[in-house]
Amino acid sequence: MNVKLTLSFDGSNYHGWQIQQNAVGVQEIVQKAIYKITGEHSTVVGCSRTDAGVHALVYVCNFFTNTNIPPDKLPLALNTKLPHDIKALQAKYVSDDFNARFCAKNKTYIYKIHTATIADPFMRNYAFHYPPDLDVSQMQSSAAHFLGRHDFAGFVAAGGSHKTTLREIYELSVAGDNPHITIKITANAFLYNMVRIIAGTLCYVGRGKIRSDDITSIIAAGNRRLAGITAPPQGLYLANVQY
Amino acid sequence: MNVKLTLSFDGSNYHGWQIQQNAVGVQEIVQKAIYKITGEHSTVVGCSRTDAGVHALVYVCNFFTNTNIPPDKLPLALNTKLPHDIKALQAKYVSDDFNARFCAKNKTYIYKIHTATIADPFMRNYAFHYPPDLDVSQMQSSAAHFLGRHDFAGFVAAGGSHKTTLREIYELSVAGDNPHITIKITANAFLYNMVRIIAGTLCYVGRGKIRSDDITSIIAAGNRRLAGITAPPQGLYLANVQY
Repeated sequence: MNVKLTLSFDGSNYHGWQIQQNAVGVQEIVQKAIYKITGEHSTVVGCSRTDAGVHALVYVCNFFTNTNIPPDKLPLALNTKLPHDIKALQAKYVSDDFNARFCAKNKTYIYKIHTATIADPFMRNYAFHYPPDLDVSQMQSSAAHFLGRHDFAGFVAAGGSHKTTLREIYELSVAGDNPHITIKITANAFLYNMVRIIAGTLCYVGRGKIRSDDITSIIAAGNRRLAGITAPPQGLYLANVQY
Repeated sequence: MNVKLTLSFDGSNYHGWQIQQNAVGVQEIVQKAIYKITGEHSTVVGCSRTDAGVHALVYVCNFFTNTNIPPDKLPLALNTKLPHDIKALQAKYVSDDFNARFCAKNKTYIYKIHTATIADPFMRNYAFHYPPDLDVSQMQSSAAHFLGRHDFAGFVAAGGSHKTTLREIYELSVAGDNPHITIKITANAFLYNMVRIIAGTLCYVGRGKIRSDDITSIIAAGNRRLAGITAPPQGLYLANVQY
């Protein structure tokens, strides 16, 4: 059977999702937990790569298994083998052609910014500390310019693989107020580091380094240097995946 | 000069406040940071010992120094030398007879409980995971029985040092609702593990293992075995110290 498994993880101690040499990815930990309860060496397909330190409120993956553990018991069984910073939330059988990566219709990320002068020790791994106060209303105005289908060639980091840099953003909101600001973004797919570059660009707008009205021309230029910084990984959370 | 220094720290990676052999306490880290900016080997007096894993939203300490760094610049200077999980919030000169431990008039702690069936990976170090749902209104009713001056001999762990087990609780509230419940308690002083035993006792009330009306007799009995569990350290936060 093909199992769609929903996880949540604190990415602070992991080098992202992907299995890799010399560093621990979440995928490896999940596969080991599956082996411990099923005796099977399953390959788990994740909905997206994530960078080191990036979190997931919701992360979807799938794997094939012959286990006779019913899907509603799988999360509790897995959680006895998973570390405290990775939890299985839900499992269900899906058709064999379901693939957590390729079947995703859209994804939602949130990005948390903390603008107080003194960093909060409890948020060091969970938000981007970027003082002083940001102009939230300017950030909100600029958000509208990102919406829709655009070529985001100026909002991608080197090292990603993609056939096209066209992406469609369905939702981009900036909520909260200083010192706690949250960006929420939904798109059909994201380029490598795209959310973090958009978050960094919104930070520059909030600081007055980029004008809200210039976003359209920055997107059109397709030049990474015109956008803002790549905001750091610890503020980023995968929040939802729709199929 | 005698400096009153206010800190905030995430205690997850420390064996409490106190300097000790073979384990790192917050005190040691703060003293090293002071040495790095003043060149002085100061002894920092903390407002209380804390157990390993216990947090402080606010922690007050004091130390004597001849530094010419003005107090309003001290927090920023210290923060350049402190790790990200300990932050200096405020510093000011106080009279030589101020002692962060002995001059404290009362302290406020909060204790966080998370009752969802599946543990939240983001709260593993920041709340007590104690499912299933608790009866919050019973916990609230029982809280009133703790108020006032009582002999809390039944609410102290072995290993503490105290001349008397009389303590006065000024405030004890249970707020929030499942799955996020927060206990807040203010007293003139606390016995060793007293907050964690009270929190554990309130958890037992919430689960129906102890009746709200029995709190008065449990306190009067002065027998540790009649109270609830010692709730674990990661849910506990020192929240305020008044002088």
